[in-house]
Amino acid sequence: MKLRTGISFVFLSILVGSRVSAQSNSSAVSIPKVRNVILLIGDGMGDSEITIARNYQYGAAGRLEMDRLPVTGSVTTYALVEEDPTKINYVTDSAAGGTAWATGRKTSNGRISTEALTNKLLPTILELAQKRGYRTGDITTAELTDATPAVLASHISSRGCQGPPDMASCEKERKWAGGLGSIAEQLIDHRVDVLMGGGQQRFEGRIDGGPYDGKTVLQAAEMEGYRIVGTSLTLNALTPGAKVLGLFQPGNMSLEWSGDPAIPFPGSGPQKCREFQRALDEPSLPVMTFKAIQLLDTRRSGPGFFLQVEGAQIDKSDHGARPCEQIGETIAFDNATKLAMDYARSHADTLVIVTADHGHTSQIVPAVIGNELDHPAGLVSTLITADKSPMTVAYSTNVVCCSRDHAMEHTGVQVRVAAIGPYSEGVSGSHDMTDIFHLIAKAIGAE
Amino acid sequence: MKLRTGISFVFLSILVGSRVSAQSNSSAVSIPKVRNVILLIGDGMGDSEITIARNYQYGAAGRLEMDRLPVTGSVTTYALVEEDPTKINYVTDSAAGGTAWATGRKTSNGRISTEALTNKLLPTILELAQKRGYRTGDITTAELTDATPAVLASHISSRGCQGPPDMASCEKERKWAGGLGSIAEQLIDHRVDVLMGGGQQRFEGRIDGGPYDGKTVLQAAEMEGYRIVGTSLTLNALTPGAKVLGLFQPGNMSLEWSGDPAIPFPGSGPQKCREFQRALDEPSLPVMTFKAIQLLDTRRSGPGFFLQVEGAQIDKSDHGARPCEQIGETIAFDNATKLAMDYARSHADTLVIVTADHGHTSQIVPAVIGNELDHPAGLVSTLITADKSPMTVAYSTNVVCCSRDHAMEHTGVQVRVAAIGPYSEGVSGSHDMTDIFHLIAKAIGAE
Repeated sequence: MKLRTGISFVFLSILVGSRVSAQSNSSAVSIPKVRNVILLIGDGMGDSEITIARNYQYGAAGRLEMDRLPVTGSVTTYALVEEDPTKINYVTDSAAGGTAWATGRKTSNGRISTEALTNKLLPTILELAQKRGYRTGDITTAELTDATPAVLASHISSRGCQGPPDMASCEKERKWAGGLGSIAEQLIDHRVDVLMGGGQQRFEGRIDGGPYDGKTVLQAAEMEGYRIVGTSLTLNALTPGAKVLGLFQPGNMSLEWSGDPAIPFPGSGPQKCREFQRALDEPSLPVMTFKAIQLLDTRRSGPGFFLQVEGAQIDKSDHGARPCEQIGETIAFDNATKLAMDYARSHADTLVIVTADHGHTSQIVPAVIGNELDHPAGLVSTLITADKSPMTVAYSTNVVCCSRDHAMEHTGVQVRVAAIGPYSEGVSGSHDMTDIFHLIAKAIGAE
Repeated sequence: MKLRTGISFVFLSILVGSRVSAQSNSSAVSIPKVRNVILLIGDGMGDSEITIARNYQYGAAGRLEMDRLPVTGSVTTYALVEEDPTKINYVTDSAAGGTAWATGRKTSNGRISTEALTNKLLPTILELAQKRGYRTGDITTAELTDATPAVLASHISSRGCQGPPDMASCEKERKWAGGLGSIAEQLIDHRVDVLMGGGQQRFEGRIDGGPYDGKTVLQAAEMEGYRIVGTSLTLNALTPGAKVLGLFQPGNMSLEWSGDPAIPFPGSGPQKCREFQRALDEPSLPVMTFKAIQLLDTRRSGPGFFLQVEGAQIDKSDHGARPCEQIGETIAFDNATKLAMDYARSHADTLVIVTADHGHTSQIVPAVIGNELDHPAGLVSTLITADKSPMTVAYSTNVVCCSRDHAMEHTGVQVRVAAIGPYSEGVSGSHDMTDIFHLIAKAIGAE
């Protein structure tokens, strides 16, 4: 079995150049009280995606960091139908799935923290945390304006309305029409303390109303006191203080690994993935996670912080039937989880929850060896794992591949939730995604 | 949402005609001690199969009985490679998967409680329970000689060697060759107190060695003191006493529901399933579970019983891409789980564990509406659920359908485990299937 390559919190402390403040709050051990919440969302990270990553990186008998979370449960993920919200859409997207964990309310696919049919704004856990004095962070490997980071700090009828130039389907929600503006605008208007991810282009559009009329969202952010960074170097140099907006790519951030995509029978491979594909001047999800905690963890008492960490491109690689990219992103997310767990172990007042917003397409299937009549119906790739054994992964939820963005589809399977820290016992058993909102709301005293 | 149709333990008590003895062991509440273990195996019941059944029968926001189990975790299910057991086969069958939970040891696909390559016999949890004075039961909706019931009370190199006439691939293991004989022979030789399921034909073959040379396995069972029953009526009439062999079909037992199989795009349906397909003179899995508990629960103190309950045809319906049959079997299994949970709630010294031996092929996918270029690659069916909403289920792990027994394939995904009762906290978190053996072994004091 391969030796673990995860990055420890102490190691990263040295790497990044300063230590997270040591909070030995002895009373927190006996009377748990949640000062900090770290919610990690593996986008599309169903049990199948978890198993594939574990098998490849650590072997079937190996263990991911997220496997070490002591309390585990299951979460249902369905959405509602826009035209008739009494009806169910059994396969959610990340917008409705995210609205569920962010607001405790179900909605229809494509909506960002707004109610199906009525477009009513749904209060989010980040807003509740801010009201109670918590500092807040929202980080992702996708564009910052993508559905998962968006649901915490914006309310809009369509997930596509990411920046000022993208408002065609949300005309009435533009600022000049008296609306809240695009997702990029709302993220800044929400004064989230730490925002990091890709999607710089969304912030370059010009605002069309309100106090920053005519300015770009980036300019508005600067005038609102945001420090704006775009590289690992400038990120690492930051010390706690004013708000931070990290934008490290025009679109999605770079993928960690690469490899051959799945193709029709007999499939691609057997292959080993090519690791270390991301340029070093772009931070990884674990580095962003570490830095976000460092920037947010500034208080000795009272409310601490709420931080959301999204491993966004597990989903996007699954859509593209790209097993190596999918595994690389899952492992990066798992390393980010380790940092959060390490922090929770040394800060007994911290609740860490790890889950997914929905399941996805990839399946581990029997080896496809030379039988034209007996193989998966979709796209296939065989990987050589840490066990030095072949693992065949199939992607079959769509016939179209790789010619457009969303080739393979989400699935409606219930997903895993796991946690550590005070209130973590609340994830044991069977739940709906909206229960994650209520668990965190209770933990921060908002319910 | 549909009203729950599950059968309560009290109701079944009346139905079957007598009460399970009330054991109000007050000391068991304060110092939990495991007198009874009920292990329920949903064959091929991955999280996807669980979600499909819940959505259909109770709606997406409804809850199965198994959802009410308080402690939950995940289990990895892989097998070894026969020729080189240091290598991994990431997709297990029920024989290797069953050997894992029954013996705590991994083996290769097709093996029944024997070691890969060496054919060494691996002691089973049923054997350990017998040694410690527990009464034992082993029930299934498949043939009693199928892999899952077999792994508890037989040891053989190939799962196909089910009855005396089926020993072609196990020549050296025949009784005349000094072996243990077929699976049917070994089940009887193990003196399991309660055996119920299908597969009567396997017991009609003639034994070719040992004290019952020339007799059929059925005759040998009678001479060993087994009471043999073949209908609901004769089963219901049984009272606790001598050992019981219930054989209710020549092959697999009847399916609970029927419907149209999944077919290529645009698929079958929208359909509602046809329920109540099983003839009343054949007992359901819940009825067998209730009766097995009643027959085994005869002691006021000391070791009680170990009972395995398999919902076998979730798997077989998944192989055949038959969603209605799959859901019907999952609901029957869930109703059996309710009986076990009811028993555990009134008997604090009872541990109930519910899991699956491996994941399976079915996936909940977005609705397939009129787009030839955008649909699942495999077989599809749309069902109208309890939410009055369409749910599309796809089967894509093989291109061949329905022309032979094993069209669709198992998957390698980790599966859910859930439990109630003393030692149930042991299922929380991430485990391997072999850990289920060790948990039960500890619970009965064998480790």
